[in-house]
Parts: sequence; structure tokens; C-alpha cells
Amino acid sequence: MQIDETLNPFFQPSGVAVIGASNDPSKLGYGLARNLTQSGYQGVVHFVNLKGGFLLGRPMYTSIREVPDPVDLAVLLIPAKFVPETLLACAERGIRAAIIASGGFREIGLEGEALEQTCLTIARHHQMRLLGPNCIGLLDTHLPLDTTFLPPPGPPPGDVAFISHSGAICAAVIDWARGQGFGLSRLVSLGNQADITETDVLAPVASDRHTRVLTLYLEGVSDGRKFVDAARQVTLQKPIIALKVGRFASGQRAVASHTGALAGSESAYNAAFRRAGVIRANTNEEMFDWARALAWCPPSRGRRVAVLTNAGGPGVTASDALEAGGMQLAQLAEPTILELSNHLPPAAALSNPVDMLAGASPEQYANCLRLLLEDPGVDSVMVILPPPPMHTAGAVAKALIPVIHHADKPVVIALMGERLIQEAVEHFRAARVPEYRFPERAASALATLAEHSEKQANIKEETYHLSGYDRKRVGDLLKQDQTRGWLGAEITAAITAAYKIPLPGGRLVNSSEEAVNAAQSVGFPVAMKIAAENLTHKSDIGGVILNLNTPQDVEQGYAELQKSAALLPGVKFQGAYIQQMAPPGQEVIVGAIQDAQFGALVMFGSGGVEVEGLRDVEFALAPLTPCDAQSLLENTWAGRKLNGYRSLPPADRQAALDVIYRVGQLAADFPELAEIEINPLRVLSVGQGALALDIRIRRVEE
Amino acid sequence: MQIDETLNPFFQPSGVAVIGASNDPSKLGYGLARNLTQSGYQGVVHFVNLKGGFLLGRPMYTSIREVPDPVDLAVLLIPAKFVPETLLACAERGIRAAIIASGGFREIGLEGEALEQTCLTIARHHQMRLLGPNCIGLLDTHLPLDTTFLPPPGPPPGDVAFISHSGAICAAVIDWARGQGFGLSRLVSLGNQADITETDVLAPVASDRHTRVLTLYLEGVSDGRKFVDAARQVTLQKPIIALKVGRFASGQRAVASHTGALAGSESAYNAAFRRAGVIRANTNEEMFDWARALAWCPPSRGRRVAVLTNAGGPGVTASDALEAGGMQLAQLAEPTILELSNHLPPAAALSNPVDMLAGASPEQYANCLRLLLEDPGVDSVMVILPPPPMHTAGAVAKALIPVIHHADKPVVIALMGERLIQEAVEHFRAARVPEYRFPERAASALATLAEHSEKQANIKEETYHLSGYDRKRVGDLLKQDQTRGWLGAEITAAITAAYKIPLPGGRLVNSSEEAVNAAQSVGFPVAMKIAAENLTHKSDIGGVILNLNTPQDVEQGYAELQKSAALLPGVKFQGAYIQQMAPPGQEVIVGAIQDAQFGALVMFGSGGVEVEGLRDVEFALAPLTPCDAQSLLENTWAGRKLNGYRSLPPADRQAALDVIYRVGQLAADFPELAEIEINPLRVLSVGQGALALDIRIRRVEE
Repeated sequence: MQIDETLNPFFQPSGVAVIGASNDPSKLGYGLARNLTQSGYQGVVHFVNLKGGFLLGRPMYTSIREVPDPVDLAVLLIPAKFVPETLLACAERGIRAAIIASGGFREIGLEGEALEQTCLTIARHHQMRLLGPNCIGLLDTHLPLDTTFLPPPGPPPGDVAFISHSGAICAAVIDWARGQGFGLSRLVSLGNQADITETDVLAPVASDRHTRVLTLYLEGVSDGRKFVDAARQVTLQKPIIALKVGRFASGQRAVASHTGALAGSESAYNAAFRRAGVIRANTNEEMFDWARALAWCPPSRGRRVAVLTNAGGPGVTASDALEAGGMQLAQLAEPTILELSNHLPPAAALSNPVDMLAGASPEQYANCLRLLLEDPGVDSVMVILPPPPMHTAGAVAKALIPVIHHADKPVVIALMGERLIQEAVEHFRAARVPEYRFPERAASALATLAEHSEKQANIKEETYHLSGYDRKRVGDLLKQDQTRGWLGAEITAAITAAYKIPLPGGRLVNSSEEAVNAAQSVGFPVAMKIAAENLTHKSDIGGVILNLNTPQDVEQGYAELQKSAALLPGVKFQGAYIQQMAPPGQEVIVGAIQDAQFGALVMFGSGGVEVEGLRDVEFALAPLTPCDAQSLLENTWAGRKLNGYRSLPPADRQAALDVIYRVGQLAADFPELAEIEINPLRVLSVGQGALALDIRIRRVEE
Repeated sequence: MQIDETLNPFFQPSGVAVIGASNDPSKLGYGLARNLTQSGYQGVVHFVNLKGGFLLGRPMYTSIREVPDPVDLAVLLIPAKFVPETLLACAERGIRAAIIASGGFREIGLEGEALEQTCLTIARHHQMRLLGPNCIGLLDTHLPLDTTFLPPPGPPPGDVAFISHSGAICAAVIDWARGQGFGLSRLVSLGNQADITETDVLAPVASDRHTRVLTLYLEGVSDGRKFVDAARQVTLQKPIIALKVGRFASGQRAVASHTGALAGSESAYNAAFRRAGVIRANTNEEMFDWARALAWCPPSRGRRVAVLTNAGGPGVTASDALEAGGMQLAQLAEPTILELSNHLPPAAALSNPVDMLAGASPEQYANCLRLLLEDPGVDSVMVILPPPPMHTAGAVAKALIPVIHHADKPVVIALMGERLIQEAVEHFRAARVPEYRFPERAASALATLAEHSEKQANIKEETYHLSGYDRKRVGDLLKQDQTRGWLGAEITAAITAAYKIPLPGGRLVNSSEEAVNAAQSVGFPVAMKIAAENLTHKSDIGGVILNLNTPQDVEQGYAELQKSAALLPGVKFQGAYIQQMAPPGQEVIVGAIQDAQFGALVMFGSGGVEVEGLRDVEFALAPLTPCDAQSLLENTWAGRKLNGYRSLPPADRQAALDVIYRVGQLAADFPELAEIEINPLRVLSVGQGALALDIRIRRVEE
């Protein structure tokens, strides 16, 4: 991980000055001074307040200029309008890092935006880095350091870092974490991100040795590809879980292709998170449920789970939840079952879930767990502990913990209830064993552990090295022909040829006679397709005619195409393509778009006119990694059925992959190609290749 | 609701005898005696123990025979082997209701099963009703009555009833409810259900005036249609939420049709719950999150939600979660926005979500909530309350509660945090205002309120009255021809005709010559389909040939069909159908199966060979209600696109519905028809009807 050294003063300051410290306990400036002082911070703390005086046993300087060494971090909590001049004074004092906690900037409108811009200009000019404005600062429970103004207590020390675009969520998470029994390592509230962004802080936060998992509350990312690169560096070492909000907020863009219509920013985020190895959570609770498991459990080796319970019902619930999460109930080995039977009453269920019955003692829990962990067919274990009728849950917890600590496989606890399990809750939390109130949440945590392990190989993968395409040729073509919007038939064919995207043999014709000649030369039956500028969906307007058997058919077809085009305003008829009818095969869609945030994205799935209805499509960042390309096929029905399905013979999967790589490369090489869409790509029999029966390319307008 | 009077002693006993009461505090028999005594039960409590003696100030009788009046409910907690004779003694004592809390019955194997059967025989013979065995009994917090042996305290009194197939889940829920701040009204642990089932107790539990919502933990239902009828009677008055577990447990049946392959017991449960108006939860937490909202909020009138927050981040999270749950952000009326602006600082966001900014006071919260509730475009409100930096969450809660109590629209609270919001949590719980830790769960509760209101109209609906079909004729046909398995071509056609399921005109032919004659008489081009017994998927084996244009084509095709059939073991070639090529249209699948639990089910969706791959299908109980039939169309892409989609013209939706009703009626009328499948049904242009291009019917083999 590359760490930007200019950020060091934020995370390891030798002296911190609070500008706007106040001795009025109702002011945030008091809270900040109090938190910093009480946090146990080992560096030097300075207070600055125009009025001077004393606060918490320290003098208040009337200006940052008077503050003695050492001081390398300033925290500003003063009215917005005074921030620029104060920043300047900090710069002149030699401070190169400032947290602007004050609000009143971009979030309040144009005036605030100008003020924020001024701050940024000052900072850039003086090589000063800014966190905020409009943020609650940052917090390190181990250093320790607390530059927030939140009411105490702060979070307990722990191993989960939290980076957030929302200050209110920070406040809630700090308070909530305490109730949920997990601590935080570092917390960064990013505010308006005038300078430092979520991407900038990933590596510095991840480099903290106390941090085992990073959790992100994202409202977006500042630079898509930079984020992917930075996150990927981190996930090679530590898991990142992201809650990306604002899913439905993005307005609908005006798009003309199926690919464009289906690509929302959510598809782009999913593709980006997959590439970066970031785990995406759907809710705040899920994010922290998973974070505890990732922070506290050994790595998962697979999806085979054993369930240990003292009652049937919760075992069924657990099985359901595990299978719904893509996990499997482990098949226990015969010796394991035999050994279990030595510890359990005859009526106990020895297959998985192992139901020890209601009387299960702490010793039985511990012995059975040990046996399950020793079974080579078991990758992880869920222990279910409802309030046991005969023993206390606390005693069971005490017996289980040494077994869990000794294991090199993940164990999670479904601890069901509230009051009767409180002692057990406390034991498990202190021992850093993840416990959840119901089996469903425990199952979801185990699935995430497995997912994270599976992702490790993929994160390391580089993009596929494609060869045999002529990038220069396409560059030249686009220089020669400056047409914007949907490209004409000839240049489209030339670009396609340069990237070796296979097209059926055929000819562009400009008259009925030429059409008949062409048909006779490629051989009947033929297909005829309209060639026209500014035409989006050929088949919607009857622009594709198949199975023409005779010269008369061809003549008549040509006339029809001409007539259809004449009816459409703005569409310029350019003739028709005469193509040999392609051999049979499976039809799919392959498309690409340029996402505003993440750049080139490739789409693959079920094509035809119903593509938006079926939504059987998946996206990946372009250029693709082999793993991304495989996932396009594996996560769509269109891709899975290329392997053959019932009477449908297998199709040339490799050829489909090759086209996907080529389309991705083309889109990545030429961001001005706003949309590329092959619909359909006909994937022929194995070994026979694939043919782009129709391809359209749109160039950005502007 | 029809209440079975024989169950009254369970819910309103005048005297309860605990058989197996114990004065050893480590025994469950002590716990049971203690709970019953301490529950505040107003009737008479009797203890029975072979050894006699005294317990909790009461005598222990050595036999139920000695117990004086009144006693109409016995609770047995004695070793299983003594249960039958004790039941007999109870019966002779005139007791007609017994709870068998003891384990050691069906759940331990064959021996226990025999014992359980003996108990049932005794009970039936003496008109005695049994709850259990292997259960933890029942509990009514208002009567009050507690016949469980669980460690105290029991649940606080409340308005949510819980009926469970798992005793361990009961114990966990009781303990957990206290921590979550909601009470229970009645709780019934059903155990092995030797006699009384989940269906039996629905009406008695729902008739309790303190119960506002019923929650069910189901491992299955005893009799599918009876459950649907009983649940439907309840949901007309009170909501039922069910957590159905064992989703993946059901083994795969051997099935031959697409419909059979796609119909799992889960499809049947979904169809049954829809008909019965039962809301299906996916997790325990979800069930009780929803139950609190349904118990405490006024009915929802729609899906337009206003969000009131003091911070942007949680507002975005809320918007996401609401839209993901099918809710809409309400468009606030101009006067509402104007009024809000009078109460809020200029930088506040007045569109929905309304962000009052971090300084929002209790009065601002209350005033803005009142304004939002008064807006006619708002159906419900989510109030977001992170720990407010300037005020206490408790003060905000106190200000909000009167406004919420005064409103006739649902209000839920996303109360974010833990320690800093504790006072607010307590205020809201005491005031019966549903609060959740994060906006996601609050959004899910609002969506459930809307769903429940929307379902009310549907629950009242009766099944569609279909006319113009000849049930007697099919009965006769099935009497005459006793063939089992896939029915032959002729009888299939006759059954189809009797139920007026439209087929394309055509003829069955038995020779190549007949085929040519038939083709000439229906007119070229024709389609030819194999007619054969024991053949499942015609098109998989090349059994369908389309677009035959000449007599030569027909001859050749007939020979091919004959050849294909000869290659298939067990398939008996019966000739071919010659049909006119059907007019163009949209193709769908309509099928029916007999579910072991719920009887006839109809399936509708995207057909063709890929039906199992796309899984674009939906199921409903047959015969159908109009609402069920509509939902088949609305919940599938195949159904939605019948309205037309891009270049795809609208199709005859009414004709498709008519076929759905007819297939459902046929399956419901003749349970021996194990599978019926029309694949494809071609739905023609509007007004032109639909044609079953292929129909297959399988009769149960037995």
C-alpha cells in the first residue's frame, strides 16, 4: 500500500491545536477540547480562542501564531467566514494539516461553495492538506486521539475502522457500536471532501496495525478508477466492506442502447467493487455484523458449515439461512458421528445440524464443537445457543471460548434471547467471538467470510492481455470521420474489423439491383439489414429481414427498408447489408458504455428485444480480468446456457469470451465511443466461433 | 371466525392441574408449578405428584383422581411412558383438555411414535383435546395464565401473539421480546401436534381481544387448504405474519414437466400465503419488527412516505431503503413546504427527505412532523433521530409522541445509536411507537404496513366463477380410459376440448399419406408434431417440425418423426398432428400440478425450452381468484409483456387469463391429473384469442 506522507500529521500528530476551543460547555468548541484532552492523546494539545483565557488547565492563545511547538495539526471549529484567514495563518505557522469541522460551506449553497473553494486554493498554495469542511473529524482509539466534538463516551478501542461521508452516521455508529459490543480502531468523517477523499484515506487507515477490517459509508466515490486501485491494494491485505447509499438517487440519463438503459450507476458500483474485492453490504447492521466476523475469525476455507444446536427449530432456521446464503451443510465424517455419539444421549440427532437436545451441558457443547472443528469436511461452525433450560448460557459460553480460540476455523454463535443470555453475550464479546441474536444473521456472517476468502485470488488478477487488434487504425478512422452520434455503416464495420470482432460475411449495397447481385454472390437464403444513420433499434422498425429466398424477395425487401426509413424523421437511409444467413447458435447481447464515474463498462446477457424486460445482464469494468469475464457468463442465464441446456447444444463459450474482451478493449481504448452494442451476438457451435449479427456504435455528441 | 369450543379449556380454564409438579427446584416440574402460581392466574391451581407432599403452599395430590373441582385443563410433565395411563385417568376425571409438555414421543423414533399414537387414540375416544406432546405449553399474559416451565421472567403483556412449532424458538422469543421492548398477548407452543395443529389455534388466538397481530413460526402446515381457509378468516380482521422454515429441506420429487420441476413447496407456500393474506417474513427479527408496526400503527393508506431527519446521510439511507421496498418518497405540497420553512433555518432541505439540520430542537421535530402528517400527499412518515448534538433524544421523543398519537397515519422512528438514545427508546416503547435502530428496518416496517392494507381487498375475493366447461365429460373420459402416466394424444385433445382450452385446428394422422392429405386440407405451411405416449418434451427430441411448405416436406417430416420415436425406449409412436401454422403472437407457459400440501397449483410464465433457466414463473392456488390470476401476469415478465413492449405488439391478455382459469379449474376438478402443461400457449393479437400449441397431461401413476 502506498501511503501519502502528507497525510501523516492527521494520523500521528505531534501537536494538535484546537482553533475555536471554548470554555462554554454548551458549545461544540468545548466538546472538542474536552474530547481531545480526555482521549489520552500523548502529543501536545493547544487551544486557540480570540478571547484568550484558560480552558481545562491550559492557556487559550488568541492566535495560532502564538502557539508554541510542536504543532502539526490544526482543528478549526470557527464560523465559516473566518476559516480562510485562519487557514492562512496556520500555513504561515508551518502547519500542513487541518481539519475543518465547521459547517457553512458547499452544503449551504453557492456562497458556501465559493468559501470552500477559497480554502482549497489556500491549502493547495501552501501544500496543506484539508479534512472536511463540515465533518466531525477523526478518531483513533489506540494512538489515542479524538478530534470530534461528540458527547462522550467515545467508542471502545477495537479493530474495525469506519470511514464515512456522513457525520451523523459516524455519531450513530460510535454510540451503537458500544451497545453491539465491538470497538472501533480509527474513524474518519470526510465531510465535504474539499481536499481529502475516501480514496485518499484508505491506505493510511488500513496501514494501522490495530485495524483488521475497514468499513465504508459511501455516498459516492470521487474518482472511480483511483478508488478501485486504492481499494484493491487494501483488500489484498485487509477486508473492506462498503455500504453505498444513494442507489435510487441518480437521475435517469438519456440513453439509446439497451446497454445504456440497463447500466445504472449501481451496476457500475457492483462491477467496481467486484474488481476491487470490496464486499458490498445492504444495510448498516449487515456491515457491522460482517465486520465483526471478518475482524475476529480465522480465514474461511470453504462453504461447508456444521451447525451445533440444543434444539431442532433453530437448527432448521440456520439450515435455511445458510443455504439461502449459498453455504452448504457439511457432510460429517463417520468417525465424527461416532465420536459425537459417545458424548450425546441416544435421541440426539448426529447428522448435521447436530441437535444435542435441550439438556446439553457446557461440556457437551464444548466437546461436540471440538469434534466438529476437527472434521476435515467442516469449514466453519455455527453454534446455536437459546436460553438453555438446564444450564446457564454464560456457563456454555465459558466452556466454548477456549475451543473457539484454539480453532483455525471460523465459529460464530447464534445466541438467542436477551436477558437470559446477557452473561454469555459479555463473555463472547470480551473473547472476540462474534455472536448474533438469531441464526439468520450468523449465517450471513459465515457467508461473508467465505465470500471474502474466495475473492482473494481474483483481487490479484491483472486485466486480460488481448492481442491481435489495431488500435491505431481505429484512432485514424475516428480522426478522418468526425461524425458524432450513431456511426454510419462503413466506419462501424471498419472499427469492428480493426478489433477483430467477427461479423458475418456480407456487403453494403445502395440499390435494389446491387442487392440482388450481392444476394446471388453470397448465396440464398440471405438476411438484409437496413443501413442508416441515427437509427437505434433496427428490428423495432422492421429494419431486419431474414430468410430471403429469391431475387424477388430481395427486391421487395429492399423497397420495404427504403419505405420504413423514409417514415422516420432524422434517419438517413444509406442502403442495406446483404448477409448470408448465419449458422444456428445461441444469441446473446454484448455491449459497452462509458460510466461517468468508472469509465468503460462491459455488459453481457440475454439479448433480443426483451433485454430490458428480462434484465438477465451483468456488468464488468473494462478492460476485463479473466475472473470478471467468467463472472459475466456465470452470473447470467445467457452465459450459463452457453454450456448447453437440454435440447440446446453447447455453444462456443470461448468465442463469446473473446468478443467480450474485444468489446471491452475497444471501449477502454476509446472513451469517446459512448455506447457499443452487439445485439445479437450469435454464438455458434463449439469451435465454430461467434458472429456479431448487428453492431452499433455511438460516439459522444458534444 | 369459527371457534372450536373444545379448545376453550386451553385458553380459559377454570382449574388447572399440573401433573408432575415437583418441589425440587432443579426440575422442570417445579418451574411449571412456580410459573403457573406466579402468573397471576385467577382460576384454581392443583398439583399432582405420586409422592404427595406440599408445594408452594398447596397440597400435592398423588393422583388426578383426587383433585377436587374445578379442573378442566391438565398439564402433564411426567416421563413419556406414564402419559397414556395418566391421560386415561384425566379423561375419567372428566378433563377434556391436556397439555403434554413431556418429550420422548415421535421426535425420538418409532417407539415414541407408537406411544404418541396411543395418547391420540385415548384422547379421541374420550373427546379429549391434546396440545403437544414435546411442547412448552401456552401462555396468556392478560388472562393471565402461564403453563410453561421456562425460567422467569415471562414476557411482558402485549399485543403480539406467537404460535410456534419450535419450543426453543418460543423460549428465545420470550426472552428477546423483553429486550426489544414489545410484549406478547398469547403464546402457543405446538410441539409434535399429535392432535391440535397450528390451523386449529389460529381462530382461538385471534379471537383474543388483546391480540392485535399473530406471528407464526411454521415448519410446515398440517392440511394446506384448511390452513388457507382458517388463516383467511383471521386476516380479514387481524394481520398474520409467518416465518416458514425448512425451505431447502424438502427433497426433490421426481417430476417430468417444467411445471413440476419449478414447483417446490416454497412456490406452494407463497401461493397459499398470498391467497390467505398472510405476510411472509424471511427472518425472526423481520417478523417481530413488522409485528410491532402492525400492532401499534393506524392502517396505511398508501406508499407515499415523508422522511423527517436532522442529518443528510441517514436521509439518503432511508430513501434507498424505502425505494428498495417499493415505497415512494412523497411529493410534498407547496403549502407544506412553505409552512416548514417558517419553522426551519434557511439552509434546511425542504423537499423530501426534510433535513432540519443538526440543531433541530424537540419543538422543530414535533412541528415538522405535524405538518408532514397533515399533507394529503403523505401516507406515512419515518422520523430519523440520530443522537442529536444539541438536544437529548429523550426530549425529542417526548415532543413527538403526542403528535404521533394524534395522527391517523403510521409513523415509525429510526432511532440511531445505543446509549445516547436509551431514554428515547424507553419513551417510544412505553408509548407504543415502533422504533428501529437504523432506517433500513424502519423502511421495511412501513412497506409491510402498506402491503397489509393492499392485501385486504384481495383476501375478501372469492374464486373466479368459470363457465362453459364440461366436467362430467372429463370424468367420463377418465373412467373409460384408465391409462396412467402421460396421456395419449386423443384423450388429451378430448379433455382439452371439454374445458374449452383453445387448440389450433389440426388432425391426428397415422400415415405419411394421411399427413399429406391433412396438410393439403388445412393449407400450407403446416406444423407437424409427434403424437406418442410417454414422451415428455417433444421439442427436445426434434418432435416438432414447423413451416412445412410442400407435400414432399410433409412426407419427409413424417418419416423423421417416426425415426426419432423409434430411437427412444418406451415411447410408443402414435402418428402426428398436422396443424395450420398458428398466427404470430407471444408465447407463454401455463401449467398445473398437484402439490402434496396445498393441492392444485397453476403456474404461468416465460415458456419455451428455457423456462427452468429463466425462472420467470409464478404460482397460484387453483381454482384461482381474479386477484391471483392478475398477480400471475403482473409478477412475471411473460405476463407484463402481454401489454406490449417496444416493437412487440400487445397480445390478448384476456385470452391468456381465460386459459389460466381453465387450466386451474381442470386441475382443481381432477386431482388425479398430476401435471398439466401448455408449452407454449401462443397468445395472439388483442381480440384474437390464444392457442395451446402443445398440451400434455399426466395422470397419477399410484
